[in-house]
Amino acid sequence: MPDIMTPFGLAIDLETGDMVAATNRLVRRASDMRGYYADAEALDRLIQEQDDPLHYEVFELPVPPENGQLMYCISKLQPGQVGQEFFMTKGHYHSVSATAEIYLCLAGRGYMVMKTAEGKWATEEMMRGRMVYVPPHWAHRSVNTDANETLVSFCVYPGDAGHNYGDIEREGLGKRVFQRGGDIVLE
Amino acid sequence: MPDIMTPFGLAIDLETGDMVAATNRLVRRASDMRGYYADAEALDRLIQEQDDPLHYEVFELPVPPENGQLMYCISKLQPGQVGQEFFMTKGHYHSVSATAEIYLCLAGRGYMVMKTAEGKWATEEMMRGRMVYVPPHWAHRSVNTDANETLVSFCVYPGDAGHNYGDIEREGLGKRVFQRGGDIVLE
Repeated sequence: MPDIMTPFGLAIDLETGDMVAATNRLVRRASDMRGYYADAEALDRLIQEQDDPLHYEVFELPVPPENGQLMYCISKLQPGQVGQEFFMTKGHYHSVSATAEIYLCLAGRGYMVMKTAEGKWATEEMMRGRMVYVPPHWAHRSVNTDANETLVSFCVYPGDAGHNYGDIEREGLGKRVFQRGGDIVLE
Repeated sequence: MPDIMTPFGLAIDLETGDMVAATNRLVRRASDMRGYYADAEALDRLIQEQDDPLHYEVFELPVPPENGQLMYCISKLQPGQVGQEFFMTKGHYHSVSATAEIYLCLAGRGYMVMKTAEGKWATEEMMRGRMVYVPPHWAHRSVNTDANETLVSFCVYPGDAGHNYGDIEREGLGKRVFQRGGDIVLE
């Protein structure tokens, strides 16, 4: 007989992504992002001048990390730039590489930037009401390209997926998203 | 080398649930629900008098039905009653019983009614912005208790979960949801 879990419900604000029942809050500040941006000096200035500002947060009420379960969370990525590069998340593969992730964007504007270990890359636009399907084997990072609004997404992924940050920390995501003049440019 | 799928995005209206990119539309009419409601004669009258009205629809753009993928869909359940029993979906276990499902309600009001094969049952309220976690091994059915509004949910479940409708068709969900006088009653 398997151990039977009890069903539950919780409220998610579909405008702001607020999830008051969340028990876990992962916080990344600018200083946690050292090594990720093209312009390391611009990041150091940001940390100094703005007192190490909030970069992004992930809210969750976890379930058992097992195959068959579904992890879910709210991701909130602040607007801003490091030099001309837009604020972004660290990005990760899943530890179990053959697992997908669904992002349902609730607010803001940006991109999901994705790559495979074999060097393919892809981007998908994110905006309120847009769902992005990150297939198995794709590393993924969200990038906030809005000047003012937080990029908010509801995310679901298999319970046993896990996170592999190290590979992206070393190899990057292949493309970066910059503001060049008035344009949003992938380079 | 695994076969690498291409990422994609699609639009979901976060008020109505409209998913215009959907390629599959599952339609259940009142006549598809024979055997499910307590009052079979009331269902027959509904089918006769309202020309077999729409009961619920499921919209999807499917991904490969494999472990590691994530199926997702929009479910739209019409308001109405069969006698005093509120409109509901057929309800199902997953074929791979040890798989969860997440429902994020976008519109309407109702209940998720759930049971295990061992006879436990549970309900969770559904309303806009409420997420319900249906753990592994729980059969589940949504019930629309609003007088006018469609109950709309965004759903995610493991790619290999599958659907087992037969067990619920035979054994029911343990509890039914009725309107008795002005009250919503589980019996």
